[in-house]
Amino acid sequence: MVGIALMGAGRIARVHAKAIGAAGGKLVTVYDVVESAAQSLASDNGASAARSVEEALQHPEVDAVLIATSSDTHVDLILRAIQAGKAVMCEKPLAPNLSDALRCTNSLGAQTSNVFLGFNRRFDSGHAALKKAIDAGEIGNLEQLTITSRDPAPPPLDYIPKSGGLFRDMMIHDFDMARWILGEEPVSIHSRGSCLVDPQIGKLGDIDTACVTMVTESGKQAVILNSRRAVYGYDQRIEGFGSAGMVISENPRATSVERYSSTSFGAPDRIFTFFMDRYGDSYRTEIETFLSGVAAGTPAPVDAIDGLKAVYLAEAAGASLRLGKPIELKGNCEVTWPE
Amino acid sequence: MVGIALMGAGRIARVHAKAIGAAGGKLVTVYDVVESAAQSLASDNGASAARSVEEALQHPEVDAVLIATSSDTHVDLILRAIQAGKAVMCEKPLAPNLSDALRCTNSLGAQTSNVFLGFNRRFDSGHAALKKAIDAGEIGNLEQLTITSRDPAPPPLDYIPKSGGLFRDMMIHDFDMARWILGEEPVSIHSRGSCLVDPQIGKLGDIDTACVTMVTESGKQAVILNSRRAVYGYDQRIEGFGSAGMVISENPRATSVERYSSTSFGAPDRIFTFFMDRYGDSYRTEIETFLSGVAAGTPAPVDAIDGLKAVYLAEAAGASLRLGKPIELKGNCEVTWPE
Amino acid sequence: MVGIALMGAGRIARVHAKAIGAAGGKLVTVYDVVESAAQSLASDNGASAARSVEEALQHPEVDAVLIATSSDTHVDLILRAIQAGKAVMCEKPLAPNLSDALRCTNSLGAQTSNVFLGFNRRFDSGHAALKKAIDAGEIGNLEQLTITSRDPAPPPLDYIPKSGGLFRDMMIHDFDMARWILGEEPVSIHSRGSCLVDPQIGKLGDIDTACVTMVTESGKQAVILNSRRAVYGYDQRIEGFGSAGMVISENPRATSVERYSSTSFGAPDRIFTFFMDRYGDSYRTEIETFLSGVAAGTPAPVDAIDGLKAVYLAEAAGASLRLGKPIELKGNCEVTWPE
Amino acid sequence: MVGIALMGAGRIARVHAKAIGAAGGKLVTVYDVVESAAQSLASDNGASAARSVEEALQHPEVDAVLIATSSDTHVDLILRAIQAGKAVMCEKPLAPNLSDALRCTNSLGAQTSNVFLGFNRRFDSGHAALKKAIDAGEIGNLEQLTITSRDPAPPPLDYIPKSGGLFRDMMIHDFDMARWILGEEPVSIHSRGSCLVDPQIGKLGDIDTACVTMVTESGKQAVILNSRRAVYGYDQRIEGFGSAGMVISENPRATSVERYSSTSFGAPDRIFTFFMDRYGDSYRTEIETFLSGVAAGTPAPVDAIDGLKAVYLAEAAGASLRLGKPIELKGNCEVTWPE
Repeated sequence: MVGIALMGAGRIARVHAKAIGAAGGKLVTVYDVVESAAQSLASDNGASAARSVEEALQHPEVDAVLIATSSDTHVDLILRAIQAGKAVMCEKPLAPNLSDALRCTNSLGAQTSNVFLGFNRRFDSGHAALKKAIDAGEIGNLEQLTITSRDPAPPPLDYIPKSGGLFRDMMIHDFDMARWILGEEPVSIHSRGSCLVDPQIGKLGDIDTACVTMVTESGKQAVILNSRRAVYGYDQRIEGFGSAGMVISENPRATSVERYSSTSFGAPDRIFTFFMDRYGDSYRTEIETFLSGVAAGTPAPVDAIDGLKAVYLAEAAGASLRLGKPIELKGNCEVTWPE
Repeated sequence: MVGIALMGAGRIARVHAKAIGAAGGKLVTVYDVVESAAQSLASDNGASAARSVEEALQHPEVDAVLIATSSDTHVDLILRAIQAGKAVMCEKPLAPNLSDALRCTNSLGAQTSNVFLGFNRRFDSGHAALKKAIDAGEIGNLEQLTITSRDPAPPPLDYIPKSGGLFRDMMIHDFDMARWILGEEPVSIHSRGSCLVDPQIGKLGDIDTACVTMVTESGKQAVILNSRRAVYGYDQRIEGFGSAGMVISENPRATSVERYSSTSFGAPDRIFTFFMDRYGDSYRTEIETFLSGVAAGTPAPVDAIDGLKAVYLAEAAGASLRLGKPIELKGNCEVTWPE
Repeated sequence: MVGIALMGAGRIARVHAKAIGAAGGKLVTVYDVVESAAQSLASDNGASAARSVEEALQHPEVDAVLIATSSDTHVDLILRAIQAGKAVMCEKPLAPNLSDALRCTNSLGAQTSNVFLGFNRRFDSGHAALKKAIDAGEIGNLEQLTITSRDPAPPPLDYIPKSGGLFRDMMIHDFDMARWILGEEPVSIHSRGSCLVDPQIGKLGDIDTACVTMVTESGKQAVILNSRRAVYGYDQRIEGFGSAGMVISENPRATSVERYSSTSFGAPDRIFTFFMDRYGDSYRTEIETFLSGVAAGTPAPVDAIDGLKAVYLAEAAGASLRLGKPIELKGNCEVTWPE
Repeated sequence: MVGIALMGAGRIARVHAKAIGAAGGKLVTVYDVVESAAQSLASDNGASAARSVEEALQHPEVDAVLIATSSDTHVDLILRAIQAGKAVMCEKPLAPNLSDALRCTNSLGAQTSNVFLGFNRRFDSGHAALKKAIDAGEIGNLEQLTITSRDPAPPPLDYIPKSGGLFRDMMIHDFDMARWILGEEPVSIHSRGSCLVDPQIGKLGDIDTACVTMVTESGKQAVILNSRRAVYGYDQRIEGFGSAGMVISENPRATSVERYSSTSFGAPDRIFTFFMDRYGDSYRTEIETFLSGVAAGTPAPVDAIDGLKAVYLAEAAGASLRLGKPIELKGNCEVTWPE
């Protein structure tokens, strides 16, 4: 049974804590800068609270560390956990910016594949089935990939300044999805951004509506559409088009019930608006995958390099928007753009 | 070019008149007991009005007769037209009751296949595709057939007494669909009837909600569900279930548009409520089929015997409802039931 | 925490054992006539194995008894558990036949509502949403109810003789669904039965394809369609039609992925063929509902009377098939039919 | 009855000729550089063949001119027909290039609205319903527009050099759709183009796979996806996303039949692969709209200016691809780009 030290005791940490137990792992200890939060989460899950990161890392029953703290602490915690010889799972993003992400992967060296990066959407049953179908050749050569990703509602305004901006905070999921499904790195990226949902977001220097196109070396085209607000719920669809067909991962629904009335003619049931309804399964599968990988000693299926590449694309998207032109992408991610 | 004498100048006669022209036939003359109606329809379609049935039948350009008069006149008009050597198409039902229907087919003798019976739903593109799939063996052996047939709204109350009752007026279409798709005659029928839509219909001695089951010699089961009122429109679906699969002819929709809002999550467009929106294509295809059959001299694909069998099932359904038990069916339709 | 004694250690018992833990209950002890089976299940779930029913019932930590043994033992176990002062949940059916079921409810007297009858489909999220919509008046007055219920494949032939026949073994679920959704008892039932799937089933005196119609006092009509084999998977749909609309609980699918190719045009993902994929959620919700009801001391939402009524309808369906006519139903279930 | 002179006797001219009659117009005369083609089309439709453009324009019964000749002749024919005082409908594109298109609209001056530009997709029932829903405010403010437009198969290779390239030949429809639905002119355009379908197309200097993004003054974003080949048929969908919802015009299907088998689970019927199956209705409605507009003397709903703007966007898309950067768009279309 894999013993876990959990860093962080916030909302997503609670989700992971519950999943650890259901997946047959053992939550050993919890650390949070707010000690009472750590204690509460720990006692709810039959674990101890650690008074320091060090105490958590040194706990004899701890095999692996799950990092669910704020983004700016990820790199240091990853490096300390790896130094302590632990397997790591870290919530997305790898780092709040590209230079920190590069510092992380450079320091990790050969150990990047010991860091499981928490891009939970790779474990969504629909998106994973689409990926599997494409990899199995069902649509021939993938030619155009369209990722639609709209959240039900924007975050609180006070979160915007610390979010890192839409590309690093929200579209980062889609950058990872795109790389994963394309199976090939993009060589060019071009961004469109508008503030249409809430003018306050614009005043804070961010956008809330975005459209990014990317092209790979072989000419595959990818489009990502983001909006901070979709009144009908999480609108997260992926469409892969290829030489032999098309596969679409459509939005799941609450049930398979259909309604007819004088104004409704087979209306499907609602789309999800609460993240645990939409993504609960993906979080559970993610933790199961992590735990079984740790037990088997296999490399992470999505790792620190994937974390780096997603941050790189997010920053390149930001640069494209500022500069008003496409950005050429480089394999080593070692680039800087004018602010 | 096939020349047509049209008997009747009512609503459905107008539909047919227009379809004749579009299908490359020629509407030659029109007869109706209301002479002004005949004249109006005739002049709208570049035809002459006949002052008598005889005049219409004797017109030298007339190759075929299309009967769209009231049900009680069908048998006589069919027999006169056949005697005059014309091909005939007759609106459903063949006759208002079983004894008249039997009189008709007995008189016709070998000529039953020169009478094309206007069961237009056989020419609906969806229902026809289902029939074709079943005949092609796509679902293996057909085992259960479910026909749902609900009209948007009941007819005017004053029509109820002369309608012949729900089974003869409305479910007759479904009896023909069932026989056509089963490819085998039912040997037993059992009816359920209720008056749930409008108590006035019950006071007039009729029902408005019905459920009929039938079984064939080989054990195939068929269910027909009828209601005089469906607030969402014509609800006319067929489901064929078999040893190797299932095929469903679903309700068509106005367009392929889907809507999302805070209360709507991919709602399909509306179902039809006007009979010409729902069945316009089937009427056109029916007339085209009739005209090309007349031109080619081939037997009618749906003929007077089909008309007889449908009337027989309708009357047997009525008898089952009155007697409260299943009725055994006979191949020659020569049966009488207590009233 | 509610302590449970589990009677039976077969497949469904294992499903329940797992659900008890997940729902926050405690599996205390397990009894099975095959002692090794009880021990295995008990040790896998941190419980003890009981050497007798009595030992299990007398265990001081046991608050409630979950009966998942063979059908012929249900009544005795229910009565003993109730006598021991325990709450009971019993797998369907209440009893293998009507006389045993009546003996059970008569003996229970006022305690029928302390027996939670395990009709898990009431807890399926889709069917429950349909029920809720109807109860909320979304479709006005319910007028026609259609329940389609087809299993992926027939059971092993050697199970057929001890199954009690299709009506008692398979359609019993649908009888409970029909009563639950109608909200009114049927007053008449008529059955159609064929052997189309496997002639061996017919040789064993059973049918594999069935169609039953029922009518309630107020004239509501219900149709149940059963087949022992649907090559596309569990086909379990419910359609409620009423004065103001229609609601359909469609088959759920593995994912929301859609496929396009030269022969496929938006094909939905597969329907389930393994019972735990199809009904896993309903079993979990059922156990949660049972445990929280025991903790709160509230009457079972589906109880021994519901169990009796379902057996009664199953036997009436069998009688109708034998007699070839509809059967009138009585509220007290005190009837006998010729064999 | 509006009398029509038809210029051109090719495939699309035949489609229009048939539609004129069905819409209650009169095909008076037909002109084509290949005289025998004109004669054949004319005699099939009860019209005369004209030996010259002049003869056709001077025919006393001609009220309007329908131009369905090759693209390079459009401008001259438009100007001659307008000079002759006739109403004009001209197939897309207005002109084979921007300079000719500008010459046309400049010459037309105030008469641009007497030229009905044949963008038939505006008359597709699904796309028109989407436009109507958006204009009615159903989705609030339109924020993101996605147009997918894929043809079943590429044209013959020898057509590619004279096609003007994918943007002017194929995406021109989508540029018109985008402008029409956005209700606002784009101010920036950026193109991505690849040759993935057939390398021969690339050798001829064209692309077969394209993705274009545009932004309007107010920040609305539009994406157009094109491919010359979709093995499943015409894939022409439009998605409008806005502040209050989303509306999608999905691909129509041959029928509403759904299929189930051991490998198919409710598969919808096929998408169209023949242009008249897919767009027959839109051509008919287009002609009806043109004829009724001529009869009423109202301005064309889609006119020469719309034709100009679409050509302008097509050329700007080409320039963006060549230059590898977004192009700023100007209202007067008076720009030139380096080749």
